[in-house]
Amino acid sequence: MESGPDSVLTRREPVEITDKRLLRGARTRETVLRHAVDIASLDGLEGLSFGRLAADSSLSKAGIQTLFKTKEALQLAAIDHARDLFVETVIEPARTTPRGLPRLRALIEYWLAYIEAPLFTGGCFWMAAIPEQDSRPGPVLDALLRDRHAWVRVLEHELRRAVTAREIAELDVELAAFQIDSVLCATNTALRVGDPAAMRRARRIVDGFLTAP
Amino acid sequence: MESGPDSVLTRREPVEITDKRLLRGARTRETVLRHAVDIASLDGLEGLSFGRLAADSSLSKAGIQTLFKTKEALQLAAIDHARDLFVETVIEPARTTPRGLPRLRALIEYWLAYIEAPLFTGGCFWMAAIPEQDSRPGPVLDALLRDRHAWVRVLEHELRRAVTAREIAELDVELAAFQIDSVLCATNTALRVGDPAAMRRARRIVDGFLTAP
Repeated sequence: MESGPDSVLTRREPVEITDKRLLRGARTRETVLRHAVDIASLDGLEGLSFGRLAADSSLSKAGIQTLFKTKEALQLAAIDHARDLFVETVIEPARTTPRGLPRLRALIEYWLAYIEAPLFTGGCFWMAAIPEQDSRPGPVLDALLRDRHAWVRVLEHELRRAVTAREIAELDVELAAFQIDSVLCATNTALRVGDPAAMRRARRIVDGFLTAP
Repeated sequence: MESGPDSVLTRREPVEITDKRLLRGARTRETVLRHAVDIASLDGLEGLSFGRLAADSSLSKAGIQTLFKTKEALQLAAIDHARDLFVETVIEPARTTPRGLPRLRALIEYWLAYIEAPLFTGGCFWMAAIPEQDSRPGPVLDALLRDRHAWVRVLEHELRRAVTAREIAELDVELAAFQIDSVLCATNTALRVGDPAAMRRARRIVDGFLTAP
């Protein structure tokens, strides 16, 4: 992803590991985190515990604890892992489309796909974690909000380009990005509770913002 | 509140109790439930336990268990109690304004007040509980969704009246109600994490829907 206001939404560079023991450790870490993000998407980040991850992954509780040390470190690692998967699934595929309106449409379609055939078992990772963490200020909430804001900035950025290029009618870019994001979040909730009209409704609403000038 | 599509959003009639022992039980129940809805607004309905309520209320765990029998019954009673308080705070005060546009504006203002100086410690009760319960199908989730749908139906109902009375421009009532509600929910989240622009932004967006024909 290009640098700029949205550069926080980039995948972290994988570190090249040649030492076999370290490689095994890195793979174990990856396996544990893949379970962790699914659990958090269902039950929030408080539901993450070394014991539960051990039960789910056939690894020992002590082994997992050695990898992550504290529950907070585990929660932060899960957020990093979720962001990498999100970037890989929603942000990077959209980079092949031209900036402005086409990329905006691609981002929204990849986002809807991300919750329709959910990347995380419980749907959007951040929508599950933030309502739980919003009464717990600290580095975990900060990390969740940094990702959320970065996503809304990405929407604003492409909306602004689409307006400047006269691909869509003049609008208040910040208000529109907030509204589109609000609708996407509400669509995530609607899908989780089996509302059959959710996807079609989301697309109709988005179309309302992206009208020709 | 008038009967009709939104009649689920009415306060339950208080039962007149004259027996002193029963009266004391009813008061205890009310005290416990007031704590319960605050806990649930912060930590969701899974955070409710007889032990935690006992610690918060100087009542015995056994006494609280006798009142509610099961955790599910406690959760359902908390939802009923939250709805009564919501109706009293948001729905009933708006009934003094004429139906259509004035009542719609009143409902939205009372709703924003409900989350700005929060009626429940953690902000909107349903927005805290639904993301947690959406992976747990059953009567608790059903009760939460029934209330949510009833609220969106109330918005639709007044929007439709406002359109019919030509108080606002023609619009797709269901889409607009869904969008207004999405923005209100996102505003609840924004307030919880201390976003200073939240209230003004919500009002600007709502104004965009309620323009003259």
